[in-house]
Amino acid sequence: MAEYTLYTNPMSRGQIARWALHEAGADYEQVLVDWQEKPEALLEANPMRKVPTLVHHHGGHDHVVTEAAAICHYLAEMSAQQLLAQDHEKADYFRWLLFAAGPMEQAIVSKSMGWTVPPDREGMVGFGSFDRTIDAIEGWLTGHDYVCGERFTMADVYVGSQVDWGLQFGTLPHRPAFGAYAERLRARDAYKAAKDIDGKLIAEAQAKASG
Amino acid sequence: MAEYTLYTNPMSRGQIARWALHEAGADYEQVLVDWQEKPEALLEANPMRKVPTLVHHHGGHDHVVTEAAAICHYLAEMSAQQLLAQDHEKADYFRWLLFAAGPMEQAIVSKSMGWTVPPDREGMVGFGSFDRTIDAIEGWLTGHDYVCGERFTMADVYVGSQVDWGLQFGTLPHRPAFGAYAERLRARDAYKAAKDIDGKLIAEAQAKASG
Repeated sequence: MAEYTLYTNPMSRGQIARWALHEAGADYEQVLVDWQEKPEALLEANPMRKVPTLVHHHGGHDHVVTEAAAICHYLAEMSAQQLLAQDHEKADYFRWLLFAAGPMEQAIVSKSMGWTVPPDREGMVGFGSFDRTIDAIEGWLTGHDYVCGERFTMADVYVGSQVDWGLQFGTLPHRPAFGAYAERLRARDAYKAAKDIDGKLIAEAQAKASG
Repeated sequence: MAEYTLYTNPMSRGQIARWALHEAGADYEQVLVDWQEKPEALLEANPMRKVPTLVHHHGGHDHVVTEAAAICHYLAEMSAQQLLAQDHEKADYFRWLLFAAGPMEQAIVSKSMGWTVPPDREGMVGFGSFDRTIDAIEGWLTGHDYVCGERFTMADVYVGSQVDWGLQFGTLPHRPAFGAYAERLRARDAYKAAKDIDGKLIAEAQAKASG
């Protein structure tokens, strides 16, 4: 049995988890999840019924990790400590990992859903305003090649996926710092290996659907 | 100079950061932030202009940490390693920390704002549905006294604050597992010490406003 089992669908945030597995060089098997017929083992592991869900077979136990950002960080903790932050990088690492999983995710989803925040309720909503949220991450990436400065860490898999997807799906505005950051990430071997697998799965599914 | 500077307002998520500082036994000074007149140092540290913002004066640098969940975890990393997860607890720790900062926060905010998710767009929105999100965390806390099982860790400061606040503000439904978990947390010395400070600051502000 592989060390990790990844429940995923190629057209989902499962792509983030797969990229993280490849960055970690982890030994994993995939279980492809069909939206209509989800496997019982996934429903038991994760009552949210969501992919990605990662199971780590370790020390005689099955450890379940959900939430794409948690999966990325967990993989670094357990299988790729060179991608964790060093002490002087930890503030940046956790700040922007949680920023991307919290306010940035909320801002993008809210905009996509057409939800607007009245100015007098900005304090209630963690991201305040879409523009300020996007400006904040743009400001950071203008001064830093990666989340922690000059060095790629696992936080870049999650933060970078938010930027990469946002540019591809048009949910983030095109700005030079976003494009340059995405290009740095797309050049990575682990990114290419992971995206290649999901790209082929998507092409197969489309061929099947149209055949 | 204290080791940490906390920019906060007693009527904000800054309460979470203060509780974390007390759990860590950290040496900190507070800067109280007035909504109308935010200090220049805060605006420079955090372009989101939000509290809590934590600055760690360490190794000759000022390290800025934002996002309440990141602040909690960072404090454990740097000043309270006994509150970090051990290897066999890490899956639970990071899963539920990110769950509370992501889907749970989104579900509560969306409900408070009156935003509804059409069933065919649940896949787009990370939390899917409010009910499923709340059921998931309730299910976990029914079987576990704390995020990591039997032992309190720093993840409980953040996850616990979501539950504690939700019950107090009526944004979470009352369920036995939530109430029992909140009671366990409210009995902690660090919780009481931190809430006592914020409670007094709120009372002072109210006396001033009504005087």
